[in-house]
Amino acid sequence: MTEMHSNLIKHPSIRKILEHYRVIWSLNHLSGLGNWDLETYMPEEGSEARGEALSKIASLSQKLFLEKEFVELIKESSKLNDLNDYEKAIIRMLLRDLEFYEKLPSAFIEDFVKTTSEATTVWRKAKNSSNFSLFEPYLKKIVELCKKKAEYLGYKESPYDALLDRYEEGLTTKEVEKYFASIKTILVELTNRIKKSESYRGSHSLEEEKYDIETMHKFNQKLLKFIHGELTHLRIDVSSHPFSTSLGKGDARITTRYKGKDFAGTYGSTMHEYGHSLYEIQSHNDLHYTPIAGGSSLIVHESQSRFWENFIGRSEEFLKLIYGDLVEAQPSFKKYDLSEIYKYLNLVKPSLIRTEADEITYHLHILIRFEIEKDLIEGKIDVKDLPKIWNEKYKSYLGVDVPSDREGVLQDIHWSGGSIGYFPTYSLGTALSAMWKHHLEKEIGDIPQLLKSMDGINKIKDWLKKNIHEYGSTYTFRELVLKSCGEEFNPKYLLEYLEDKYGKMWNL
Amino acid sequence: MTEMHSNLIKHPSIRKILEHYRVIWSLNHLSGLGNWDLETYMPEEGSEARGEALSKIASLSQKLFLEKEFVELIKESSKLNDLNDYEKAIIRMLLRDLEFYEKLPSAFIEDFVKTTSEATTVWRKAKNSSNFSLFEPYLKKIVELCKKKAEYLGYKESPYDALLDRYEEGLTTKEVEKYFASIKTILVELTNRIKKSESYRGSHSLEEEKYDIETMHKFNQKLLKFIHGELTHLRIDVSSHPFSTSLGKGDARITTRYKGKDFAGTYGSTMHEYGHSLYEIQSHNDLHYTPIAGGSSLIVHESQSRFWENFIGRSEEFLKLIYGDLVEAQPSFKKYDLSEIYKYLNLVKPSLIRTEADEITYHLHILIRFEIEKDLIEGKIDVKDLPKIWNEKYKSYLGVDVPSDREGVLQDIHWSGGSIGYFPTYSLGTALSAMWKHHLEKEIGDIPQLLKSMDGINKIKDWLKKNIHEYGSTYTFRELVLKSCGEEFNPKYLLEYLEDKYGKMWNL
Repeated sequence: MTEMHSNLIKHPSIRKILEHYRVIWSLNHLSGLGNWDLETYMPEEGSEARGEALSKIASLSQKLFLEKEFVELIKESSKLNDLNDYEKAIIRMLLRDLEFYEKLPSAFIEDFVKTTSEATTVWRKAKNSSNFSLFEPYLKKIVELCKKKAEYLGYKESPYDALLDRYEEGLTTKEVEKYFASIKTILVELTNRIKKSESYRGSHSLEEEKYDIETMHKFNQKLLKFIHGELTHLRIDVSSHPFSTSLGKGDARITTRYKGKDFAGTYGSTMHEYGHSLYEIQSHNDLHYTPIAGGSSLIVHESQSRFWENFIGRSEEFLKLIYGDLVEAQPSFKKYDLSEIYKYLNLVKPSLIRTEADEITYHLHILIRFEIEKDLIEGKIDVKDLPKIWNEKYKSYLGVDVPSDREGVLQDIHWSGGSIGYFPTYSLGTALSAMWKHHLEKEIGDIPQLLKSMDGINKIKDWLKKNIHEYGSTYTFRELVLKSCGEEFNPKYLLEYLEDKYGKMWNL
Repeated sequence: MTEMHSNLIKHPSIRKILEHYRVIWSLNHLSGLGNWDLETYMPEEGSEARGEALSKIASLSQKLFLEKEFVELIKESSKLNDLNDYEKAIIRMLLRDLEFYEKLPSAFIEDFVKTTSEATTVWRKAKNSSNFSLFEPYLKKIVELCKKKAEYLGYKESPYDALLDRYEEGLTTKEVEKYFASIKTILVELTNRIKKSESYRGSHSLEEEKYDIETMHKFNQKLLKFIHGELTHLRIDVSSHPFSTSLGKGDARITTRYKGKDFAGTYGSTMHEYGHSLYEIQSHNDLHYTPIAGGSSLIVHESQSRFWENFIGRSEEFLKLIYGDLVEAQPSFKKYDLSEIYKYLNLVKPSLIRTEADEITYHLHILIRFEIEKDLIEGKIDVKDLPKIWNEKYKSYLGVDVPSDREGVLQDIHWSGGSIGYFPTYSLGTALSAMWKHHLEKEIGDIPQLLKSMDGINKIKDWLKKNIHEYGSTYTFRELVLKSCGEEFNPKYLLEYLEDKYGKMWNL
């Protein structure tokens, strides 16, 4: 692989573009660090200054991007017909950014960044005190800004299309609606079958088992070392909402959170964010400092995080590999045997928190957010009614009562950061992960078998590298799926996987 | 105070300048964060990318600074004669930067930043493995770059003057030589008197007492809470070389380090860095986002850190206030009474590590670095000979044998960051701190008396705020001393203080 890819970018015009781009990359790098720090270590009172800096830098970045010489270079190069796939992709990505910057006034971007940076700090406070009214005026402004953004960007049918497209090139509201229609009924029905099954009862007590937070953090570090090797280019910290970020070559970071009980939460988020990080880490070395380093399709990215969270983290075989360290970190688990911990990690139970949801009901959490976002952007509902609407939907789709906004409408960081149109990629990405699983297993053998040794884990990482990671953002979601799977994206693999796994587990 | 200072900057021309400056401030803010992260949390392999980003941003900053419109604004405003002190100072600081940027080519700055950013990572490795040869080629390049810098900047007598001036406006090699000549003999003599005194023997065992690092970190956080109040705008982390940084409004950060024994080391550095941070924190609110927020004179800055480290941290009265928490954090201290711990904190003992040196021999550590830097820049010695020269000077001035480069020439971070010309301000700043002490005590009473209550600590903080901090960088070192003390800088206060304190302590 390395040889074929060595010196990927050769065309002098593209190299010239990349030289100019490196300044923009540097701004992205430091802004990325600024955002990471905002969530992890920044003193509380630092948010105003950070917001100010991030917004100024965002508009400076736009200014540099729109410098005449750079724009001309991009436009000239887009006419070249001797570019390889990597070079073409660089132009594709830059044209996409260029369109964004040409359509959005810099004052708007500055306002957007500043508002969302402050809003994130307010959201954290609002969440901690379970007080939606604190966050409400900020969210209201963010929704207005997103509507404005949609108008600036333009769209064919729904203004929500314009927002979706920023997170996933070309994705439309109609497609998302069609996708959910194809999985919703089957998943609801599967959930009901599981809930009615004989063996469903009785394995819930593990959720209440407490752990020591410092010990568990050390366990997570050990876990990462085990699956990844030396952590000289990857670190794990704590934030109220787990996320991953890649600041460039040799610097990938993930976060997790600790509740002090219900181990599955922090374990799941660590495996999940690791999946994201691995994509960035295994992106080809020659793509560093370019706009196609790492993944830009959120669906593909999420397919990687969900792959590690679900197919590795939630498998009985992987659990066997880490069982010794796990019960050492959480001694109360000693009273359960491995199969009980396995069932606990795979418990299907309609619940409140998306990031801790099981593999089946997870998609209903996303569906709720999708419907709310769409209605907000299409002006059909008001921000002030969100807690009510949220709670009603959770009751109706998942059958659960939401006891507080902290566990309800305030649970996710996304809206505070202005990320409206992002959530659907979570469900679509999960569906894609099942498709990768199918093709990986066809090529190198079943994952449970592979998980019997460290060598098997490395084979999995290599397959992902060769088929997905190494390309960075060279191909769009649709192109990459077609290239690596030989067929178009299809949610049937998700349904088959769930039917098979949970059918066996609960003897349906 | 607040009223007099409210709306400090009113002149429309200066306000216009500050608007443009805010983008440069934003770059400084994120670069500051990038440097902080480099020392604290960045994964090891991230140094190349970080170095690249910091160097690109440094030259971008220069480019923005040199934009014709901005330069004209500054030059036009420098002719105005209706500016108040704050507005004048903004122009003074910007003209200083302008001179720097006009004289140094941007490619040079980029090279300097990139080299030093990488060198810092290499220095850390070299120090950890006590391997000077790892660091040698980087230091050699840094010395060459600094010589070049001196040539670009220009100087009257020694090229070292040009470097000194960047850290302390107008400071010259001759002045530094004269200063050291005025204190060296007296300090050496005082040290010898102490070493010969009856009571000098026997109180050294505390240095070997071990502590638990996590517990001690919690103690340091408690200590900061005690002297400062809520830590919503100040945090403490760990780095191999303690430092402080202020990223702007509401975001001050200090670091410390832990050896696992010899409590005085981490305690001293925490108090020291706190003194720096307090200066930034108590700078007037209206100065945020301007080039005169916080202290720019390194001598004044160091006078603040040394004030807290020595007059507060090393006083018997303050020790009484924290004694309970201290012995709880370090239970082995229970076997010593307060006066023994006090003597341990004030032990005069020629030693290896500057940051842990006593108040008297500290200045000899600085003198050694000053002499080496001067000779390096004047081309009288070679980088490759540094370990030998270092060790010889330590033997000759302090009478100690240096067992390894880690505890010798590799101990300080400064040179790896390109900071040659910085060290002398440490000694001069310490001398200035004694001058502040003298004048503070004349006005609000003796520090030992004030330290008998929390209220007294607040009075000290208020005096420092009113006389020093609040002005930020409005006045130069010399102007501020004259304004607040009514006389010129004089090292006699340092000598008087040391003679008095150590005379009493060791019954000389």
